[in-house]
Amino acid sequence: MPESHVRRRESLRASLREQELSGLLVTDLLNLRYLTGFTGSNGALLVHAEDTPNSEDRTLFGTDGRYLTQSADQVPELERIIERPTAEALCARAAREPASYRRLGFESQQVTVDGLDALNAAADAVPLVRAPGLVEQRRMVKDEGEIEALRMACAAADRALADLLEHGGLRPGRTEREVARELEDRMLDHGAAGRSFETIVAAGPNSAIPHHRPSDAVLAEGDFVKMDFGALVDGYHSDMTRTLILGDPAEWQREIYELVHAAQAAGRAAARPGAEVRAVDRAARAVIEDAGYGEQFLHGLGHGVGLAVHEAPMLGGNGAGTLFAGMAVTVEPGVYLTGRGGVRIEDTLVVRDDSPEILTLSTKQLTVA
Amino acid sequence: MPESHVRRRESLRASLREQELSGLLVTDLLNLRYLTGFTGSNGALLVHAEDTPNSEDRTLFGTDGRYLTQSADQVPELERIIERPTAEALCARAAREPASYRRLGFESQQVTVDGLDALNAAADAVPLVRAPGLVEQRRMVKDEGEIEALRMACAAADRALADLLEHGGLRPGRTEREVARELEDRMLDHGAAGRSFETIVAAGPNSAIPHHRPSDAVLAEGDFVKMDFGALVDGYHSDMTRTLILGDPAEWQREIYELVHAAQAAGRAAARPGAEVRAVDRAARAVIEDAGYGEQFLHGLGHGVGLAVHEAPMLGGNGAGTLFAGMAVTVEPGVYLTGRGGVRIEDTLVVRDDSPEILTLSTKQLTVA
Repeated sequence: MPESHVRRRESLRASLREQELSGLLVTDLLNLRYLTGFTGSNGALLVHAEDTPNSEDRTLFGTDGRYLTQSADQVPELERIIERPTAEALCARAAREPASYRRLGFESQQVTVDGLDALNAAADAVPLVRAPGLVEQRRMVKDEGEIEALRMACAAADRALADLLEHGGLRPGRTEREVARELEDRMLDHGAAGRSFETIVAAGPNSAIPHHRPSDAVLAEGDFVKMDFGALVDGYHSDMTRTLILGDPAEWQREIYELVHAAQAAGRAAARPGAEVRAVDRAARAVIEDAGYGEQFLHGLGHGVGLAVHEAPMLGGNGAGTLFAGMAVTVEPGVYLTGRGGVRIEDTLVVRDDSPEILTLSTKQLTVA
Repeated sequence: MPESHVRRRESLRASLREQELSGLLVTDLLNLRYLTGFTGSNGALLVHAEDTPNSEDRTLFGTDGRYLTQSADQVPELERIIERPTAEALCARAAREPASYRRLGFESQQVTVDGLDALNAAADAVPLVRAPGLVEQRRMVKDEGEIEALRMACAAADRALADLLEHGGLRPGRTEREVARELEDRMLDHGAAGRSFETIVAAGPNSAIPHHRPSDAVLAEGDFVKMDFGALVDGYHSDMTRTLILGDPAEWQREIYELVHAAQAAGRAAARPGAEVRAVDRAARAVIEDAGYGEQFLHGLGHGVGLAVHEAPMLGGNGAGTLFAGMAVTVEPGVYLTGRGGVRIEDTLVVRDDSPEILTLSTKQLTVA
């Protein structure tokens, strides 16, 4: 996506000018990937804010010798500095032209207290000023290329779940760990480069633990089996939770399942452009609270998904801001009854002008495995 | 290992007193795991420096509601604060007793510039002072429990490689990606909880790229196949590189293989207690430079391995400090001939009083697959 990278850098320059910054030192690796496509484990970018035909010529990319070839392939259009420590090397370049860098922004949400000392030493007379989250803000609204990557990541997870069920992979006697590994393996079969995060498979009473780590616990008849998993495709993550039941559901299981299902639908319906993030949380939470289970749903409703599996915006009761078309978020209410079992249902979706586009397509109807 | 956690906290308190700190706020998650055994994705620890029978009673552990059950299991011996934002909640507790916290250290190598603002606001009258790397320093020398975990992680990788070769997994016609996936899968078969890092499988000319990402490139007769991979066991990483050859080695291949092999042996031999880290790098590098390939070995010789796959000490030409018995480090020289192929040979080893204990046991003799 080299064109989109150029476009993103242009758009970032415009926002730097609005903030009266002469440039931005980008040190967060996901922000660097977003702006350049570089996927290595060390790199930085110095973006000059000026709006001239040769703005790109004043943008410097830095990495170290391990990524000499890779950076030439991935970022051929920018001048490259191969030096370590890398961000310091870019600051030293800015220091050669203090008149051009009267206010150089740095990512104060990412740079450590000690790291800033090193940058300041290298930047010499160039003043480094806090400029937190500028790229993260822009990452919230996805372009269609990004949404296509998210769609593929979600499809890999959907297909993995379908394969698991079709081949009888969810049955009494298997361990949580075995099911988790099969899901991950099947995501790789469907084009994932890896898993998005440590897969959660939680059976029976373990399903009441929101973030359970798969164990040697054995699946049994009558268990809820909660699976929270995601695939990584082209750097983009998916995130989906489904809770199935092994055999006939008991009355209490049917009750909390339908409750969470209704809450999740309410949350999805509320996820429209212009909605306050806390109102989206509220819409789903009200359904659960009204049924008397508010104390059994203690986490936020969802979060943005993209190059990071958890990113802005956060959909929670204390969240601030509104949704825009093109944001990709999860909607994932849950009800957890300690010692008995719990249900969470989660989709990754894209906020659209009309109704949201759901990217995780596995059924949310109560399914007996 | 609850006893070792208590011992580590006691030892940390002694070093805080030496630095005239009244306490330390631990926010780095690996440091937190080292000191408590907690494995969640959010947490912090407030350690008071005082040396009294009830020092442990003044140590506060913090996390959020997602880890209510898990933290009760993993850290039952400490008072727990379940609140978000977590480190801020611990600072607020310290703020209740400003007389006890005249100088509260924070991990300035980990806390971001913006994060420090939030901590200062919560700490109120308690002065936060920089205390970088105190736990990392202690993590460098491993105890026998840690070395046993490293041994198991290394064994999982060794066994995976042995299985791959025994089942003919390394053969012309397979792709790098297929080989990488098989290695990772076999590490799981041998008890790994996951891979330590993205597996490198680099065939033919790709083997000349130090950090090549597995692609659809097909292995061919006469190729070097460089594999750099590791397993995660109980939170501890392994890290091993082996370079095999498909079919008969050409003369140039035999030459650089034997050169790297000799350099690696020289590096291992130099890894003794009391050795300067840069002298260990030099010992291996000299072998390669003397043969005229110095420009083809542009990365450091190695790094510490433990809860992080890359941690202190760094073995490089600019490194400072000396080795101690019980440090776990890699020794991994390489020679890379762009466009032709490259060789890297890497062990994870423990520095011992006599000769180092090599944990990665796969043969380093030139092996024809």
